[in-house]
Amino acid sequence: MMGMTENLARFIVQTPSTEIPAKVRHEAVRSLVNWSGCALGGAGHPAVTVALQALTPFTGVGRASVLGRHERVDALHAALFNGISSHVLDFDDTHPDTLVHPSGPVLSALLALAQHHPIKGGDFLDAIVMGIETECRVAQAAGKAHYNAGWHVTGTAGVFGAAAACGRALGLNVQQMTWALGIAATQAAGLREMFGSMCKSLHPGKAAQNGLGAALMAQAGFTSSTQAIEGSRGFVKVMSSEPHEELLLAEIGTRWEALNNTYKPYACGLVIHPIIDACVATHASGKVAPGDVEHIMLYANPLVLELTGKTRPATGLEGKFSVYHAAAMALIEGCSLSSHFTDAAVHRQDVIDVRDRVKVQSIPELRVDEARAVFTRRDGTRFEHHVEYALGSLGRPMSDDDISKKFLLLAQKVLPLKDAELALHVCWTAHTLANAGDIGDALSIGV
Amino acid sequence: MMGMTENLARFIVQTPSTEIPAKVRHEAVRSLVNWSGCALGGAGHPAVTVALQALTPFTGVGRASVLGRHERVDALHAALFNGISSHVLDFDDTHPDTLVHPSGPVLSALLALAQHHPIKGGDFLDAIVMGIETECRVAQAAGKAHYNAGWHVTGTAGVFGAAAACGRALGLNVQQMTWALGIAATQAAGLREMFGSMCKSLHPGKAAQNGLGAALMAQAGFTSSTQAIEGSRGFVKVMSSEPHEELLLAEIGTRWEALNNTYKPYACGLVIHPIIDACVATHASGKVAPGDVEHIMLYANPLVLELTGKTRPATGLEGKFSVYHAAAMALIEGCSLSSHFTDAAVHRQDVIDVRDRVKVQSIPELRVDEARAVFTRRDGTRFEHHVEYALGSLGRPMSDDDISKKFLLLAQKVLPLKDAELALHVCWTAHTLANAGDIGDALSIGV
Repeated sequence: MMGMTENLARFIVQTPSTEIPAKVRHEAVRSLVNWSGCALGGAGHPAVTVALQALTPFTGVGRASVLGRHERVDALHAALFNGISSHVLDFDDTHPDTLVHPSGPVLSALLALAQHHPIKGGDFLDAIVMGIETECRVAQAAGKAHYNAGWHVTGTAGVFGAAAACGRALGLNVQQMTWALGIAATQAAGLREMFGSMCKSLHPGKAAQNGLGAALMAQAGFTSSTQAIEGSRGFVKVMSSEPHEELLLAEIGTRWEALNNTYKPYACGLVIHPIIDACVATHASGKVAPGDVEHIMLYANPLVLELTGKTRPATGLEGKFSVYHAAAMALIEGCSLSSHFTDAAVHRQDVIDVRDRVKVQSIPELRVDEARAVFTRRDGTRFEHHVEYALGSLGRPMSDDDISKKFLLLAQKVLPLKDAELALHVCWTAHTLANAGDIGDALSIGV
Repeated sequence: MMGMTENLARFIVQTPSTEIPAKVRHEAVRSLVNWSGCALGGAGHPAVTVALQALTPFTGVGRASVLGRHERVDALHAALFNGISSHVLDFDDTHPDTLVHPSGPVLSALLALAQHHPIKGGDFLDAIVMGIETECRVAQAAGKAHYNAGWHVTGTAGVFGAAAACGRALGLNVQQMTWALGIAATQAAGLREMFGSMCKSLHPGKAAQNGLGAALMAQAGFTSSTQAIEGSRGFVKVMSSEPHEELLLAEIGTRWEALNNTYKPYACGLVIHPIIDACVATHASGKVAPGDVEHIMLYANPLVLELTGKTRPATGLEGKFSVYHAAAMALIEGCSLSSHFTDAAVHRQDVIDVRDRVKVQSIPELRVDEARAVFTRRDGTRFEHHVEYALGSLGRPMSDDDISKKFLLLAQKVLPLKDAELALHVCWTAHTLANAGDIGDALSIGV
């Protein structure tokens, strides 16, 4: 009888492409576009620049792209750097059930591999699907206790996703894929203690690099336990006080976790999104001028204050963890951009004037993707707005067009508009490519 | 007030060389000789060959040595490959209090670094001392519960040791060293589920590679939490159900864990060592001819049967987990060599004839480094031997000469005797080297 890890490996490598629904493959393309935009937007971040500076002397002679930049490196290092840049803005995709950010590990590994070993567009999409599926299911099997204990699940489950995607694309057999999952399992890492430092985005980077390495080593015959996930000293038992192994394979092949993936419209914590929506809508209504605000009362799920309760952010990074700053900015600007979370932005006097008038009340009955805002003007009159589902939530997903616009906004930080539009087209038509590795060229700067 | 991680970082980078006792530095040299021999002996193992085959296309243009081989690669990959080869024979050093194998992560990282960035011999020894100290103390802080839960502590604590050694050698400041420990912490990994597969030796390899990378990234300014070890979502709380944080810094600078390190005389599990000693001594006495044995009664700590109770080993690897095979072999040959744990060796008829006459009785009162053997001859007469402290234990350490002999035996698997003797001399006189990186050349094959 095969074990759970072996059965997962069999599913990853033996499921025919024809059994993956078109809708699921389309979601893989949406993930690709969103991930690409995030990586381009993050390409100039100091976390990327510093990592490149430290590690360039050790990179190989490969031609894999560092997205949004001119450097070309070996595929393993490209996976690392692109994993960092795609997560560093906290703008990448989120699987709400597990809090995994699926695409960073999977796509950073897979695109780098495609620039080393050609992968047809259709196979590339299948591999993304398998990577996301594996990553989310491993996280479900580890259970909520895993994240709650302090593990950054994007790192720990991410390395499995990267190994699965690359293993599928390399055409591993079941034995090799089982080893790849084992080599991944024994490198699963990433502590939430690192949140607020560059190491947070190192997690998807290392997950991508190590997951790609795991698939390559398994292909060459590097052995592991065949029960890496379910074994008595395996991943879920060692790394979770309350594992749910039964979820690893439940409804596999009929429920597809790529369909439960979400994309952020705003470059900050998901829990603030319904509040930003409310402020953006209020700005658009023209009913509340920022200078006329006496105070703003926000009603939201308790997680909002728990995660983003910073009243006086001193840096742009802290601004992302301040519901007060985010709300004030959205009311003033009528939108929410990554440029609103810079050191300069949190020190703008007009923003501070509004920010200090914001109050937040925790309402356990409100869902995390729901919020209510009550604006009181200086004359005592009020304006209310209720957001039932935040934009980007499963209840109100971003449209393909929304994702394209987000891509173009981020891409233009490093590419001329014409190149950004071309790159966007290449991503949306990935299934037609003879080699998906061409996406890497489209998303980087020619030398 | 500085936190524990910061205080450890300060100790690592600011302790003057003059405050490290000569005895401790000499122990660092003994660790170096022992580690070098193990890496040379393991250089041809399939785990090393397969890893090289898989990853060579991605290696950089560096000139760091893969020990016992002709390949030259970037320092990060050299750290990985040498970490694998130095552990793959299960013949490397052991810190009995924590079960850490200290030198694999530390020396694989540090020697590779020295071939990239010259390090004076004396500084090299200080860095080894700091690496071992950090690694063992991090393991003590994680507590026995950490290993018992299923973590391979040589992987999880090893990455801290590698970062500490490399950080010291690179001359990091306290802030940078704190980050290096954080970057290491968030990559700590390695599951005991992998024992019996190639992934076991991947653990010190990855610990070395990631620890070196952590030091290099921190030097360039890559940030982490400054409370990576003690923070509420930091290493010891997330990865241990019963941490002992108070042990991290207890008596630091006065108690040196390098002095609590041990070296194996025999290439098999430590728990069998006192029994092998008894059989080797009996052989030397000339009092018991193997063909004259009616039966052998061994009295030993219960761990012996628990860990090495295989009565009929079918492979060389299984032979390492058979006290029966190990005892028979030692009585016949008068020594215990890695060549005694091959597939051919476990099928030798003369060995099987003696092996099947061995009985083991568990005696909880006997320490794990103690054993008693009673040999009954066919004529009914008896010969007894009591081993109070196994050779290589803290009670009866291997002499420098013992370690040299072990080195030469292992080194000759890949180097001509003359080259092996020269390499041995280079290791023992490491403190005199203008660049310790020369050790890497002495331990590899010229191209």
